[in-house]
Amino acid sequence: MTPKGFSFSAINAGVKAPGTARLDLALIFCDKDAVASGVFTLNKVKAAPVLIGMELVKKGSLRAILANSGNANACTGSGGTDDARALMEETARTLGIHRDEVAPLSTGVIGVKMPVGRMLEKIPELAAGLGGDPAPFAKAIMTTDTFPKVVTRTAGAATVLGIAKGAGMIAPDMATTLAVVLTDAVISKQDLDNIVKTSIESTFNAITIDGDMSTNDTLLALSTGYVTVNTNEISRAVHEVIRELAIMLVKDGEGATKIVEITVTGAGTDAEAKKAAMAVANSLLVKTALFGADPNWGRIMAAVGYSDIPIDPDTIDITVSGYRVVTSGKEAEGFSEDMLHKKLVEKEIAIGIDLKGGSGRFTAFTSDLSYDYVKINSEYRT
Amino acid sequence: MTPKGFSFSAINAGVKAPGTARLDLALIFCDKDAVASGVFTLNKVKAAPVLIGMELVKKGSLRAILANSGNANACTGSGGTDDARALMEETARTLGIHRDEVAPLSTGVIGVKMPVGRMLEKIPELAAGLGGDPAPFAKAIMTTDTFPKVVTRTAGAATVLGIAKGAGMIAPDMATTLAVVLTDAVISKQDLDNIVKTSIESTFNAITIDGDMSTNDTLLALSTGYVTVNTNEISRAVHEVIRELAIMLVKDGEGATKIVEITVTGAGTDAEAKKAAMAVANSLLVKTALFGADPNWGRIMAAVGYSDIPIDPDTIDITVSGYRVVTSGKEAEGFSEDMLHKKLVEKEIAIGIDLKGGSGRFTAFTSDLSYDYVKINSEYRT
Repeated sequence: MTPKGFSFSAINAGVKAPGTARLDLALIFCDKDAVASGVFTLNKVKAAPVLIGMELVKKGSLRAILANSGNANACTGSGGTDDARALMEETARTLGIHRDEVAPLSTGVIGVKMPVGRMLEKIPELAAGLGGDPAPFAKAIMTTDTFPKVVTRTAGAATVLGIAKGAGMIAPDMATTLAVVLTDAVISKQDLDNIVKTSIESTFNAITIDGDMSTNDTLLALSTGYVTVNTNEISRAVHEVIRELAIMLVKDGEGATKIVEITVTGAGTDAEAKKAAMAVANSLLVKTALFGADPNWGRIMAAVGYSDIPIDPDTIDITVSGYRVVTSGKEAEGFSEDMLHKKLVEKEIAIGIDLKGGSGRFTAFTSDLSYDYVKINSEYRT
Repeated sequence: MTPKGFSFSAINAGVKAPGTARLDLALIFCDKDAVASGVFTLNKVKAAPVLIGMELVKKGSLRAILANSGNANACTGSGGTDDARALMEETARTLGIHRDEVAPLSTGVIGVKMPVGRMLEKIPELAAGLGGDPAPFAKAIMTTDTFPKVVTRTAGAATVLGIAKGAGMIAPDMATTLAVVLTDAVISKQDLDNIVKTSIESTFNAITIDGDMSTNDTLLALSTGYVTVNTNEISRAVHEVIRELAIMLVKDGEGATKIVEITVTGAGTDAEAKKAAMAVANSLLVKTALFGADPNWGRIMAAVGYSDIPIDPDTIDITVSGYRVVTSGKEAEGFSEDMLHKKLVEKEIAIGIDLKGGSGRFTAFTSDLSYDYVKINSEYRT
């Protein structure tokens, strides 16, 4: 089920290397002007499509998204902007729309010039392939992802469709990813901006795989406005789609074998709770212990301790998937390493950290750190 | 060659588990009052020996150091302090000195009670074994270290001896480690404090293995004051010993196969240069690329970009071991992936990043991230 007014296509354009068979160039087309919102990487090194996308979204309306994997179009100087514009121009010409109604999205290796010639040649065929199935688009934007990420929700008669790619370089703010959220609900630019921005904070900005932040992070939200629905309902559906995509990204983190939810309560403020939760979520020692199901809870205490927020170590309680591990800063009475080990063998783990110092709270999501993370990232281009 | 007035001993006391043969309890004795300085972890979760050591060093004089590996004596509540004090008391009684002249040092698993009974029993035998060779002490404080770390320098007729353990949880500020720096030079408490504090900033606080910071970091510096030397000379020798120990820690980082020096120049301030250098030094994507000799320089640009300092991406130059990789934010002319790969295969790598925005500079040291890091840390206790 897809929202009314959107069509999809994907093709192999040899972006990574000529001769490979995988889908790497993809298109979303809107049959009318779509209200558009976007959230972009905070990295000061921004890829050309990010710089362009930020400008386009300000105007508030788009007709198409042209995405590619295999090349980030980042750190290539003004040539990168020229390349992106040439692709937008050709897409617009083929679809009979204006260049600045086409938003570019790129992901892949940084610093290598895009093979624009090969890509331009394929755009007519790409446009000719437009149809109702979003699956090829979802596949074409994958890099080291092991599965395509597609989520749908309904809000009354309206539909919300989310598509994302993630896997590597996942970190706030925001989690490195390309994501599109499409709906046919009637919604104002201002409402869409608000929904997206508030949803991001507790979802994409709450997940981490390796603490790195990419040059290309982008989430675009588009609405064709065919269906009138209650604003609260559509807000909830958009939030759920964004949250579900974020969790899928963690589950498919490079080399991840587990998903770990880390909830910090009792902090002075929500911002302090987030600092503590993200310190634990990013700790390599915690993440390797999670991978090995090592009942080494001291690493959680140590990460909270260096998270640079006010704490009293002697008041901290820690639970792991409901099992009490630490009470008032030390091993809980009756604690058993075997019991904790059993909790850590599970594929879904919930760590609760109560600082007992206030009402601030935050939930972060992370993955464990495995051999495969190292393997994937040490051989990314070889 | 050891500085006059110090003797050393080490023994197996079954700290980790009874029946293991390794040295895990160690002693340094000063035959007269030694001027003492110390630097301690900034982690808010501090082990009992850290809290005690901080108080002892304020008084400025020590006679002995009692160190153990296998147990951090952290997160064990007031019992941890009682345990440390009992060990200090027994050491003092055996050596005929006062309890508060014995500084405790611990490293190992957090949150597990120390086997104080076994340790107390061994102290008389430990004291009886005191002799001139520091090697057993250096071995006894090792955890996942693969080699003992001992450095000596002379300053005129005086000697400076440094001993450290590192390997895991190495991160500023300060690098997680236990270190002792011993000298027989005449030096005031104030001068020793100054030398240690200024040396730390460009050495132990400039190295990182995994970004984690322990609950137990401690560097203690002691001087018996037998030999009169020029203050500049002794300062230089102490600095060199501390720097050499820091580099040895990185070389022996868990699973490390390479040592990488990252120098950022052209930042607005030294502090900004440090932020950028440490972002690159801590980036898992950079560290895995270094392990795999993957010529993926975009990951360096991305890390500089998210380091949260003012930069202009279009002015950045990057060299790797002298080879120009990036000029003004994009691939240098004539750049060859093969050439960069060859530089990255080397065991010692120097990354130069010129931001061209000011005169701030900083050099950080890091290691690569290998399969073995994951192996060591996922199986630490199993």
